[in-house]
Amino acid sequence: MPRLGSNRYGKAEVRVLRVSRGSERDALRDWNVSSSLSGDLAAVHLSGDNGHVLPTDTQKNTVYAFAQRLGDVEPEAFALALGEHFVGSQPPITRARIAVEQYGWRPGPAGHSFVRDGGEVRTTTVVHDETLGTTVVSGIDDLVLLNTTNSEFWGFVKDELTTLPETRDRILATQVSVRWRFRSTAVDWAAAHDAAREALLAAFADTYSYSLQQTLYAMGTRILGAVGDICEVRLTLPNKHHFLVDLAPFDLVNDNEVYLAADRPYGLIEGTVLADDADEAPLAWS
Amino acid sequence: MPRLGSNRYGKAEVRVLRVSRGSERDALRDWNVSSSLSGDLAAVHLSGDNGHVLPTDTQKNTVYAFAQRLGDVEPEAFALALGEHFVGSQPPITRARIAVEQYGWRPGPAGHSFVRDGGEVRTTTVVHDETLGTTVVSGIDDLVLLNTTNSEFWGFVKDELTTLPETRDRILATQVSVRWRFRSTAVDWAAAHDAAREALLAAFADTYSYSLQQTLYAMGTRILGAVGDICEVRLTLPNKHHFLVDLAPFDLVNDNEVYLAADRPYGLIEGTVLADDADEAPLAWS
Amino acid sequence: MPRLGSNRYGKAEVRVLRVSRGSERDALRDWNVSSSLSGDLAAVHLSGDNGHVLPTDTQKNTVYAFAQRLGDVEPEAFALALGEHFVGSQPPITRARIAVEQYGWRPGPAGHSFVRDGGEVRTTTVVHDETLGTTVVSGIDDLVLLNTTNSEFWGFVKDELTTLPETRDRILATQVSVRWRFRSTAVDWAAAHDAAREALLAAFADTYSYSLQQTLYAMGTRILGAVGDICEVRLTLPNKHHFLVDLAPFDLVNDNEVYLAADRPYGLIEGTVLADDADEAPLAWS
Amino acid sequence: MPRLGSNRYGKAEVRVLRVSRGSERDALRDWNVSSSLSGDLAAVHLSGDNGHVLPTDTQKNTVYAFAQRLGDVEPEAFALALGEHFVGSQPPITRARIAVEQYGWRPGPAGHSFVRDGGEVRTTTVVHDETLGTTVVSGIDDLVLLNTTNSEFWGFVKDELTTLPETRDRILATQVSVRWRFRSTAVDWAAAHDAAREALLAAFADTYSYSLQQTLYAMGTRILGAVGDICEVRLTLPNKHHFLVDLAPFDLVNDNEVYLAADRPYGLIEGTVLADDADEAPLAWS
Repeated sequence: MPRLGSNRYGKAEVRVLRVSRGSERDALRDWNVSSSLSGDLAAVHLSGDNGHVLPTDTQKNTVYAFAQRLGDVEPEAFALALGEHFVGSQPPITRARIAVEQYGWRPGPAGHSFVRDGGEVRTTTVVHDETLGTTVVSGIDDLVLLNTTNSEFWGFVKDELTTLPETRDRILATQVSVRWRFRSTAVDWAAAHDAAREALLAAFADTYSYSLQQTLYAMGTRILGAVGDICEVRLTLPNKHHFLVDLAPFDLVNDNEVYLAADRPYGLIEGTVLADDADEAPLAWS
Repeated sequence: MPRLGSNRYGKAEVRVLRVSRGSERDALRDWNVSSSLSGDLAAVHLSGDNGHVLPTDTQKNTVYAFAQRLGDVEPEAFALALGEHFVGSQPPITRARIAVEQYGWRPGPAGHSFVRDGGEVRTTTVVHDETLGTTVVSGIDDLVLLNTTNSEFWGFVKDELTTLPETRDRILATQVSVRWRFRSTAVDWAAAHDAAREALLAAFADTYSYSLQQTLYAMGTRILGAVGDICEVRLTLPNKHHFLVDLAPFDLVNDNEVYLAADRPYGLIEGTVLADDADEAPLAWS
Repeated sequence: MPRLGSNRYGKAEVRVLRVSRGSERDALRDWNVSSSLSGDLAAVHLSGDNGHVLPTDTQKNTVYAFAQRLGDVEPEAFALALGEHFVGSQPPITRARIAVEQYGWRPGPAGHSFVRDGGEVRTTTVVHDETLGTTVVSGIDDLVLLNTTNSEFWGFVKDELTTLPETRDRILATQVSVRWRFRSTAVDWAAAHDAAREALLAAFADTYSYSLQQTLYAMGTRILGAVGDICEVRLTLPNKHHFLVDLAPFDLVNDNEVYLAADRPYGLIEGTVLADDADEAPLAWS
Repeated sequence: MPRLGSNRYGKAEVRVLRVSRGSERDALRDWNVSSSLSGDLAAVHLSGDNGHVLPTDTQKNTVYAFAQRLGDVEPEAFALALGEHFVGSQPPITRARIAVEQYGWRPGPAGHSFVRDGGEVRTTTVVHDETLGTTVVSGIDDLVLLNTTNSEFWGFVKDELTTLPETRDRILATQVSVRWRFRSTAVDWAAAHDAAREALLAAFADTYSYSLQQTLYAMGTRILGAVGDICEVRLTLPNKHHFLVDLAPFDLVNDNEVYLAADRPYGLIEGTVLADDADEAPLAWS
């Protein structure tokens, strides 16, 4: 007899722009919101009985209604409110997971005019569980960083399939995906984001790197040191290879000037750095 | 004091085409292979000491070398061999995770000519751990299915933010991402894939659906019933909404003929179906 | 003084699914329709006077209304009707350009169930001009073809920056984007599509190729030979490089078995083949 | 008898990063370069004779060699040099088309550290023809702009399929793709780019808009006014619809605060603005 395991359902990628009108300049919140709900949902799976199912269309409506009600809030505050609403108002629902991506806009030449900042995306994921509590994990995606020097790679294992030469000077580039877990839900979210981001950028620039793993660990420790409200940092760092082009066949010297920016394959470094007193929190990462 | 948590590193998206020459028709294996290794890797994180690090470039070389040696094998067999190789040959490495995407090709009008099958992708992920054992999870991505009828949605919760009308006839469409976990590593991989895929398609076509969750559960149970080697099925089913277009303003009757295919937002249904005797296997899904 | 040059406006990417119910099996038309209109539109550019502007929202509505009215027609017939409608009904509009992408579906295991064919896309573009007449250009995008042999590349120019070795046996792979122009608007569109596609596949498979240009020209001539209604063929053929992996450092022989499938850069071959009596038709390609 | 029409071939998307080392801060040129060549190329099409074909692999090498030789130059200067090289050094080649995309990087917290600017892409396309001369067309892609107000849309045509209500206040957002043609090849490229970009942003912010066409025309005229070296501007402006969400069913007032950001379909406005004395230049846009 088969049995139903863990499950959840929701509405993904609700795109909402929230404009808050100001006297000098308007403020924008440009979000991509995904909600998913879990709880007493066996019946809908086993027999298609929707009696416990709040439609995903309603979840979408709720995003828009809360965007109006809550005004110009940080995405963490929005996600917390939304998660509490679903669990609090729907008896069969015991857990909600709310994820928000926030896209940046820079001021344009007039107070009502904006230029999209096409790079990094700010993220947050709130899991609100009726009995297990609430976790907040925020972070950044698609933050692309590059150092033109201060990176070496040597002293590695050489087996019979190794052909890579050692290098004492290479470009180090990565597209950062980082997540940081907060100790509580009472945090100055904007300040925490800014401080964590600044620590990450500083760690990348300051670390004289012998491996991308070393840089990863430096990023994690610097973020933990900068923001006491954060107890765990997870990083996914693709190694965006920039290979020095061999110009010798053309009698040209390539003195670390001309690089081939490769697409695939790429190195992929994943790791976690925790505060010494951090607890396990599987719920936060579910 | 910060501490290093779980971590892994490897080479992602090594694109390899393996041609096996035949008298009537050649055989292709068109793969995207990603490897990642874990083990005694604290030093590289803490001080940049690469003494335990087999370069990701070598992992890439290994993919190509094994593709030559192993010949026209199923992706599961390839991933198993690769995982065992890394753990077996690198003392500091205690775990390897090998993921393969296989792209399909249809025969063209000559035995050396092929037409890419641009749709679904066959996947496998092998985790080989020195002490915890070996797991194989295979599946399919990007399999897009659509039923023109035999789907209803009504009887759901209505709260004060619900505006969705009930429907007794709608299009049901989804882009299946499915993973099935095998009980062992001694399986006829090709036969298992074909049987699981056929069971999934049949479940989708045969189930008169009152919710996508019901269809998900039917898919899982049918796969478990069809392939005894499989003990767990996880499904991620976006609800690719096709909304009936309101043509009444134009004095046209839309008798379930003209639909708007929407992009975002979309419903997202995720669930697991397990055989009654299936164990927990967190390693398999790491 | 600046002056307004050529211009057009419309609604892009209207996604419509048209279901035609059958006794044994339903029929699907899954389309992405884009319309754009040109004509006496100076005022809207110079002063924002919308008096000649049929809203793009209305163009979208028109796509849905015509999908209902016209039923299960070929995309060329749909685009012709739509273009004639806009030019015929809007006095300021003298030209319409209608582009349709058609996505394929394969039959599933029941008459109401379908599996998306994720590969090639069938296309058509109709330009209907009040005074210059009507042109139909159809074709295929994203048709990926591969020959495992019967391709050489040698005898090319070697300048001081050439390092490529000659080869007498290589993989030839390309992602075909092809467009064929019809002589008239009275054509059996489905039959023409099938015959042109078959001729293209046959040309790719049959041509022993010394260059991708040669294969391109063969494709064009075969299509012209197969479909008398077609007078011009334009092809865009990226050379999807598959490089033989050098396994010699590992004491392995790579006897044309293991290839690296590269992403970028890629060769790009573009060319036109015309029937001897084909006229110039700039309108068709605008 | 079929005949060969216009054709070209080359290497697309050569990814080159050029680092110029500085005492305070390094300078980056992060480019995606595509070259294509035309000329006496009938033989390679008709019989596969490559005697006139400079391999696309060599074109790639040439990009890297020129990146080393030319140093930290503007993309226009690079493309001009490359085009002249191919036509000047290859007798059968009479025309070269060189396209460069330049990706932006912002300074990081150290002189060797950079943060990718993920938004707009700077582009240039040079066509160098042995007899017809040389044209330079530069521009920007993926520049996303949004005004929160000062946009109306009313007074448009209403036919029997029109349902769109008029509006006196809407969001206007677009993803600008703009190209400007220069009068000559002796231009301060960096200054021209900055001035044209600034004029475009100012036109978007300053124009009280009754239609996106009006904004397009304003952009074109402002660029022409700002940069005398430019004689033609072509703009492609998708109307990235932001629909005001109807919150009335929830007894909420939506006072232009909460918008749905839509993906598809989208309006698409294309137009050209020319200086009064601008000549026709089909070569530039080929």
